[in-house]
Amino acid sequence: MKRLEGGWPSGVVAESTLPGQAYIDPVGFQRELERIWFDTWLCVGRVEQVPHAGDFLTRPVGDESVIVLRNRAGGISAFYNVCRHRGTRLCPEDGGTLKGAVIRCPYHGWTYETTHGGLIAAPNVPEGADFDKAGFPLFALRVETWEGFIWINFNPRSVSLSESLGLPATYAFYEKYRVGELKAGAVMEYDVRANWKLLMDNGLECLHCSYVHPELSRCTPPALPRRWLHEELPESAVFKHSGSMELAAGFHTVSLDGTPRRPRFADLIPADARSIYYAWVYPHMMYGFAPDYVFVLTLLPVAVAHTKVWGYWLFDPEAMARPEFDGSDAVEFWDLTNRQDWRACELAQLGNRSRAYRDGGVLVQNEWRVQKFKRYVLDAVQRVTLGGGADGTASAVTPRAGR
Amino acid sequence: MKRLEGGWPSGVVAESTLPGQAYIDPVGFQRELERIWFDTWLCVGRVEQVPHAGDFLTRPVGDESVIVLRNRAGGISAFYNVCRHRGTRLCPEDGGTLKGAVIRCPYHGWTYETTHGGLIAAPNVPEGADFDKAGFPLFALRVETWEGFIWINFNPRSVSLSESLGLPATYAFYEKYRVGELKAGAVMEYDVRANWKLLMDNGLECLHCSYVHPELSRCTPPALPRRWLHEELPESAVFKHSGSMELAAGFHTVSLDGTPRRPRFADLIPADARSIYYAWVYPHMMYGFAPDYVFVLTLLPVAVAHTKVWGYWLFDPEAMARPEFDGSDAVEFWDLTNRQDWRACELAQLGNRSRAYRDGGVLVQNEWRVQKFKRYVLDAVQRVTLGGGADGTASAVTPRAGR
Amino acid sequence: MKRLEGGWPSGVVAESTLPGQAYIDPVGFQRELERIWFDTWLCVGRVEQVPHAGDFLTRPVGDESVIVLRNRAGGISAFYNVCRHRGTRLCPEDGGTLKGAVIRCPYHGWTYETTHGGLIAAPNVPEGADFDKAGFPLFALRVETWEGFIWINFNPRSVSLSESLGLPATYAFYEKYRVGELKAGAVMEYDVRANWKLLMDNGLECLHCSYVHPELSRCTPPALPRRWLHEELPESAVFKHSGSMELAAGFHTVSLDGTPRRPRFADLIPADARSIYYAWVYPHMMYGFAPDYVFVLTLLPVAVAHTKVWGYWLFDPEAMARPEFDGSDAVEFWDLTNRQDWRACELAQLGNRSRAYRDGGVLVQNEWRVQKFKRYVLDAVQRVTLGGGADGTASAVTPRAGR
Repeated sequence: MKRLEGGWPSGVVAESTLPGQAYIDPVGFQRELERIWFDTWLCVGRVEQVPHAGDFLTRPVGDESVIVLRNRAGGISAFYNVCRHRGTRLCPEDGGTLKGAVIRCPYHGWTYETTHGGLIAAPNVPEGADFDKAGFPLFALRVETWEGFIWINFNPRSVSLSESLGLPATYAFYEKYRVGELKAGAVMEYDVRANWKLLMDNGLECLHCSYVHPELSRCTPPALPRRWLHEELPESAVFKHSGSMELAAGFHTVSLDGTPRRPRFADLIPADARSIYYAWVYPHMMYGFAPDYVFVLTLLPVAVAHTKVWGYWLFDPEAMARPEFDGSDAVEFWDLTNRQDWRACELAQLGNRSRAYRDGGVLVQNEWRVQKFKRYVLDAVQRVTLGGGADGTASAVTPRAGR
Repeated sequence: MKRLEGGWPSGVVAESTLPGQAYIDPVGFQRELERIWFDTWLCVGRVEQVPHAGDFLTRPVGDESVIVLRNRAGGISAFYNVCRHRGTRLCPEDGGTLKGAVIRCPYHGWTYETTHGGLIAAPNVPEGADFDKAGFPLFALRVETWEGFIWINFNPRSVSLSESLGLPATYAFYEKYRVGELKAGAVMEYDVRANWKLLMDNGLECLHCSYVHPELSRCTPPALPRRWLHEELPESAVFKHSGSMELAAGFHTVSLDGTPRRPRFADLIPADARSIYYAWVYPHMMYGFAPDYVFVLTLLPVAVAHTKVWGYWLFDPEAMARPEFDGSDAVEFWDLTNRQDWRACELAQLGNRSRAYRDGGVLVQNEWRVQKFKRYVLDAVQRVTLGGGADGTASAVTPRAGR
Repeated sequence: MKRLEGGWPSGVVAESTLPGQAYIDPVGFQRELERIWFDTWLCVGRVEQVPHAGDFLTRPVGDESVIVLRNRAGGISAFYNVCRHRGTRLCPEDGGTLKGAVIRCPYHGWTYETTHGGLIAAPNVPEGADFDKAGFPLFALRVETWEGFIWINFNPRSVSLSESLGLPATYAFYEKYRVGELKAGAVMEYDVRANWKLLMDNGLECLHCSYVHPELSRCTPPALPRRWLHEELPESAVFKHSGSMELAAGFHTVSLDGTPRRPRFADLIPADARSIYYAWVYPHMMYGFAPDYVFVLTLLPVAVAHTKVWGYWLFDPEAMARPEFDGSDAVEFWDLTNRQDWRACELAQLGNRSRAYRDGGVLVQNEWRVQKFKRYVLDAVQRVTLGGGADGTASAVTPRAGR
């Protein structure tokens, strides 16, 4: 297999996008929830965001809310954010620390332990009542971690994260950034009024960069040679694509002015230090590897035209411990770039509603990564799960109480 | 029949709530409108809110708006808030006084008298035109009053209010508060982003009080003995439940500090003066009887996850006439308590959308009143009206012009 | 045929309005889009709003957005506001000037020439790729102008504007105002939360004027004689109705105080100078001819209960060129009058949702123009297009690329 130097894999030709309907139809969105989002490992945060027992995050997926927390046993657990008593949302906040490291419903005080979600108190049930607490644990989700990221899966019968992602996987560039040893120095959350697939389509190509991202284009000029590692990656690889772009002369990191403000990662060779590497995990994650920090985007769909996005800025904890540490240049750069992307996606959402877009648009050869993602989506939503319900999905999506 | 001293009626066991769908489905909400709200007597205000001819209130039920007014004959009338000419909303305000004590459409000036809704002027119809005004009265609703409260019914063929409520009914505690002689010293309106049934479920139990209402729990501590009068009440009773809670030591009324600021009602015996009594009328009304005022909540559904609530603070008119009269302690207390309840209901609404709540939650024995209300709802929505339309409801819900 | 002096044509009797459903149903609204709005010539602006190559307006129709512009060839073109590449909305603004007089997509820079919408650059497609730009022009709409107004038609196979409107048409009054020589001195845009048909119903009668428009009624008192030219107009006429109202004593133009601030149009005879003439074009346009200016309203539907309206104030360019020119009296008068109308329409929208309006209201004889418009709507939505798709509409509504 040959390494790509720009361009696209041989044999790639232009093809149509998904039809406009795929980006605007609430019924299709529900199907995507059932076939993709409730049946796939989803990256929802960093372990260092929940360092102590009782620390938690909440994350939305469609109408669902999930609590992700550090349990009392020291591990990470995840539960549907729904009390078994009356269906109350247990934690309305985006995150915080649970008092007493237990989940106590704010309505009637039903209280759950954090490791397995077991019901440990139901104050409205008098002593002696014939009521078995063991029958009312929280509905749990599967949780695993990889390199500091927390992943959940709504499907209790899913294969493991490592089997799903094809781990361990080795990449010549990836190991050098030691992602598992880095820590999040900043996390930002965005609300985008566009379908989640438009955000993925956007992230999977940089052909828009010249038009949408003047600052990014100064830092990593589109005209400089870029490399795609596509053909090195088997279908089962965690990174469905990866590649690199070259820093402009005078730029030593990925920021507005390119001035280095942190030591570069120790394992990088000079060529790495002149590059930003990118890598994508389907259906919702993108890494950018700068010489002195790693930026990661993940997204979760809320409604057919509403997507939430999280950006994580990861730094070497030794660099962060220094008094002069400052990561604001990295945050400023990507926050600006992200907002430019969301604006483009929101314009695409508006136009995709048109009668003139019923048959969709066109993906040219240069957009072969978007083509590949399109096929991933089509395969997923057209999949039939044997043994499932009438729509082929029931078995995968039924929540399971406890763990 | 024995009086209950705390606890629940014998034979009550835990059961499931309604499924989550019942709280989030717009189609089911329309069915509830047709089978409950458009076919039940509804409390919509106090007679003293419309003292003079032309004084009016408007009240929403789903997409409907109803005008309730003091007519020129001195009685109360109610009409659909819709002009017969072009369907214009006649009174856009929440309440006020009709100029000239007639209902004049703001669009083309069609004018209706207030007693029967008869069309008395259609200025756009020239003299001599072959147009019979008698054919275009407002669509009227039935109206009755009971103890100062105004009740309406969308169903023109309903039994009378007194037959529907089972009046006259005598309750050992109720007569002592002379509700019919009291006057509203304050009325407040709330918008809650939750299904109406969640508000009723909330009002029908105080097991949440320790968690949601710290101020209420100081005033009437949940640990003190409480009494339920359930088994005294036949199925046809106006009060589907009633009971009492005991005031804490040092509290002489239901307020933040328990300080009495008005004379207590004259007929109370010492035990009453140490208590607050509660009583519930299905589907949408709750009384709280404090020693020196009565607080009443009513609700009306606007959309599947939007409910409007009115609170009425009733006082002895003699006390209100005194210069030193101040009811703000009662208003402050319940306004605070109400808002705590609405917050809990809105959290329940959010969680009830979850896949993890498709089968609903659990109603324990202590929540037997919520169980009973659930059965009321199920009976109502599953009812078939003989002689009705294809869905069994048409005959009951067809508006009737005039009275 | 006799000229009407007030009153209504012989044989006109009262009839019902459309049922309430026709004003609130999103499905029926889609049918109206397909059968009326996407298959009718629509007035969308004035040629003097886009004087130079690259000047553009955008206009919504349902979920569609249309770009209307002055092309490089000096004519007017109109295109779906949708990039052929990924469906991005090309021009998010309401209007402006295109840089370089080309349409460049803000996402990936696909660039279209403005005359025929041809794709002239696709920067993400590398040189030498097998990609034929000729296959990706913008979807074009038909465009024509008449007397300074720009008209578009979504249906590529429509008859011409002049054939559709029945041009040239001569009207004794119309020619004297020389609309084609006037220029827009002001344009205002309004958002109304009511169905578009309620706005037309409103504009087609002045029986509401006494109740809704005190200022207008002072200027042109409803009690003064009015004339309808209805029976002079054949079914195919551009003006489906026209008529005149007389100015009150002391009023010399249509404004709050009636004070003339501009010379009156030169061709008017004294009787014209004491009148305002009105004329209506279906489905969405109304002219008002004052002695010294012409006011025009057009509307476009956005959603079942959301309509956008544009008001144009046209003046003699010679008058506008004078230093003392001031058109603010005309703008102030109609802006006030318009807002009164929109308020009435929004109240009608609210009431039309009622169960009490399921069978609709009544159109009396005096409202024969509203009756006639109702029949126009019914004819249009019930029409079957031979050779169309299953719903009879497909052939008319399929967008056509290029011109």
